[in-house]
Amino acid sequence: MVQIKGLRNLSPYVAGQQPAEKNIIKLNTNENAYGPSPKLDQVLKDYDIGQLRRYSSLEHPELSQALAEHLGVQKEQLILGNGSDDILSMAFLAFFNNKEPLLFPDLTYGFYKVWAQLYQIPYQEISLTADFDIELADYQQPNGGLVLANPNAPTGLYRSLADIESLLVANPEVVLVLDEAYINFGGETAIPLLDKYPNLFICRTFSKDAALAGLRLGYGVASPDLIGVIKAVKNSINPYSVDSLADSLGLAAIRDWAYYEDINQRIARTRDDFTAGLRALDFEVLPSLTNFLLVKPKGISAAALYQYLEEKKIYVRYFPKLERLKDYLRISIGRPEEMQQVLARIKEALK
Amino acid sequence: MVQIKGLRNLSPYVAGQQPAEKNIIKLNTNENAYGPSPKLDQVLKDYDIGQLRRYSSLEHPELSQALAEHLGVQKEQLILGNGSDDILSMAFLAFFNNKEPLLFPDLTYGFYKVWAQLYQIPYQEISLTADFDIELADYQQPNGGLVLANPNAPTGLYRSLADIESLLVANPEVVLVLDEAYINFGGETAIPLLDKYPNLFICRTFSKDAALAGLRLGYGVASPDLIGVIKAVKNSINPYSVDSLADSLGLAAIRDWAYYEDINQRIARTRDDFTAGLRALDFEVLPSLTNFLLVKPKGISAAALYQYLEEKKIYVRYFPKLERLKDYLRISIGRPEEMQQVLARIKEALK
Repeated sequence: MVQIKGLRNLSPYVAGQQPAEKNIIKLNTNENAYGPSPKLDQVLKDYDIGQLRRYSSLEHPELSQALAEHLGVQKEQLILGNGSDDILSMAFLAFFNNKEPLLFPDLTYGFYKVWAQLYQIPYQEISLTADFDIELADYQQPNGGLVLANPNAPTGLYRSLADIESLLVANPEVVLVLDEAYINFGGETAIPLLDKYPNLFICRTFSKDAALAGLRLGYGVASPDLIGVIKAVKNSINPYSVDSLADSLGLAAIRDWAYYEDINQRIARTRDDFTAGLRALDFEVLPSLTNFLLVKPKGISAAALYQYLEEKKIYVRYFPKLERLKDYLRISIGRPEEMQQVLARIKEALK
Repeated sequence: MVQIKGLRNLSPYVAGQQPAEKNIIKLNTNENAYGPSPKLDQVLKDYDIGQLRRYSSLEHPELSQALAEHLGVQKEQLILGNGSDDILSMAFLAFFNNKEPLLFPDLTYGFYKVWAQLYQIPYQEISLTADFDIELADYQQPNGGLVLANPNAPTGLYRSLADIESLLVANPEVVLVLDEAYINFGGETAIPLLDKYPNLFICRTFSKDAALAGLRLGYGVASPDLIGVIKAVKNSINPYSVDSLADSLGLAAIRDWAYYEDINQRIARTRDDFTAGLRALDFEVLPSLTNFLLVKPKGISAAALYQYLEEKKIYVRYFPKLERLKDYLRISIGRPEEMQQVLARIKEALK
C-alpha cells in the first residue's frame, strides 16, 4: 500500500469518563451540581425550530449586549465562542506568535500544553511550589506570554487580584491569558483590571457556573484591540461556532443570574462542608475556591480509594500518570446529599 | 503606551449580510429554502434541559451509529464537528503537513485559502477554465494535497465520480479533501470510492441539505486511519464542539431523511425552473447541481441588478472584489413563489 504523506502524528487525548449508567454519582468532570435555570426550559419549548435553517448572526448582538452589561464592560470587549476551549485555543493562535517561550504552570489545565504543541508555540512549564502554588517571581523571566487559570485547576487554588496585577505590570509587552472558568465559586474576577492593562485577556465559560457544559458557550473579555486580533482569527477558522440555540439559552441564563448566584453559593457551602469532613479524617485538602477539591487521602492510597469509589458507582478523577498528583484525587462538588454519601463511602473504605 | 508583541495580524473576514429585517427574500448565503423536519420541533419540546449541565459524550454513539447506517459506512469512518468549517479547518491541520503546495481552484470556497494562510500551509490556486470548470490535468503536478468542492461553490458545477477517481489515482500519496456540502441537490456522492481510496476524505454538513445552518453540525467520512489522524487533532483543540442539542436534533434529522429528500428535490426543481426563466432573458446561467446559481445578467450590469434587488429587499451575493466574478451574481434558490418574485423584479429592472 502507498504511504500517505503529510499526516499529523498526535497522541489521542484521553478525556474523563462519561459513564452512560443512570444511578451514579458523577464527580469527575467538574460539572455543576445543579441544573440550568428552569427559565431555559421555557426558552427551549418556545423556540421556533424554523429559525435553524438560517445561519446565526456573526455578532450575536442581543447576547453580547446582555453579557456586556452583566460584566460591566462594552460589547466591543467581548468575543463569544464554542466553549472556553474554543476561545483559549484561538487565543493561543492569536496572541503567542513569539520566539520566547510561553509560560504556564506544570500543573494546570492540560490543554495549555496541547495547544502550544499543536500550534508549535515555544513553551516552558513552570513548577508549582511544594504547596502547589504559583511563585510569582518565576513569571518575570523573558517570555512570549503567560497563561494562568485563576483559580487554578486541578489544584483549586486562587491568587488575589494584587498578584495578578503584579504579573501584568511585570510583563507589559506580552498577553496574559487568564482562565477564569471557576471564578464564580468564590474568587474575585480580574475584569476591573482590564481598564488599566491592555495586555490582559480573560476567558470565561458557561460550562461550570451556568451549568451548561452540554451547550458549549464560552467568551473572552479584553481591550477592543485584543478582541479585534482574536476575532480575526476566529473568523478565519469557524465564524459561526456559537449556534442559534446556544445564543438564546445563554441570553436566558444571563437574565436569570440570581438563580445561578444561589446555586453556586450552595456549591461553595457544600465544598466547605465536604472539606471539613475530609480534614476530620486527616485527609490533606487543598484550599479551593472552585467546585472541586484536590485531596490526598490518609490511611488509604489514592489509587485504592479511586477504585473503591468506582465500585460504588462514585466517579472521581485520578491522574496516575502525573507524578506529582499520583497520591491525590480530584473530586467535583455535587449536591449535599451526594457528598454525604461520598463521605460515608470513604469512611467505609478506611475500615 | 507599550507595544504588545506576538499578536497575529490577519484581515477580518467579511461574511454575507445577515439582515435582521423580517419581510425580505434572503438568497445570499445558500440556506435551505425550507425549514428543518417538523419532527425536530418535538425533540426540542421534549428535551430535558437538565441534561445540559453535563458534557456531551465525546463519541456521540447514537448519532454516529445512525449516521453511519444512513451513509452505508462504519462508525469508525466518521468524525463529527461544529459545522463543516470545523471539520475542514481540522482537516487542513491534520492532513497537509507537506512542503509541496496544497492545490485548490482559484474560484472555490473562500475559506480554503484562509485556512492555508492561517496554518502556514504552502498552497497554489489553480485557475478554473474559461467555463469555470476544473482542468483535471492541472491537479497531477507535484503537490502536498488537494481540496475540491463537488459541486463547486460559487460556480455550482459538478464533476462525475470518474473524474474524482482519476484524481485519487493520480495522487495516491496525498489526501484529497472533497467538500460535499451541496451534494444532495443532484450530485452523486463519492462515498462508494472510500473502499478503494484510503487517501479520500469527504466533508459534509447539515447546514444546507438538512436546513440546520443555525445548529452547527458537520462531519467527515474517510478510512478509519484518516479519521484517527483528524480525531487526534480535534481532541487537541475542542473535543466537545458538538453540543448535546445538536446531537439530539441531528439524530432526529437523519431519522426523518425522507422529509429532506422531498424538500431538496423541490429545491432542485425550483432551481431548474428559475434557470430556464433566466435563460429566457438571455442571462448566462452556469449549470448547477446545488441550491444556488451563478448568473451573468444580460442588459444590466451585475452591480446594478444587485443594487436594484437589494432596494426591493431581495438579498443575493455579489463579489465585486473577485475579478472573474465581477459580472456575476450568486443567487440561492428559495421557495417557488420567492423565485417567481425575483424573476418579476429582474424583468422590472431590465425595463
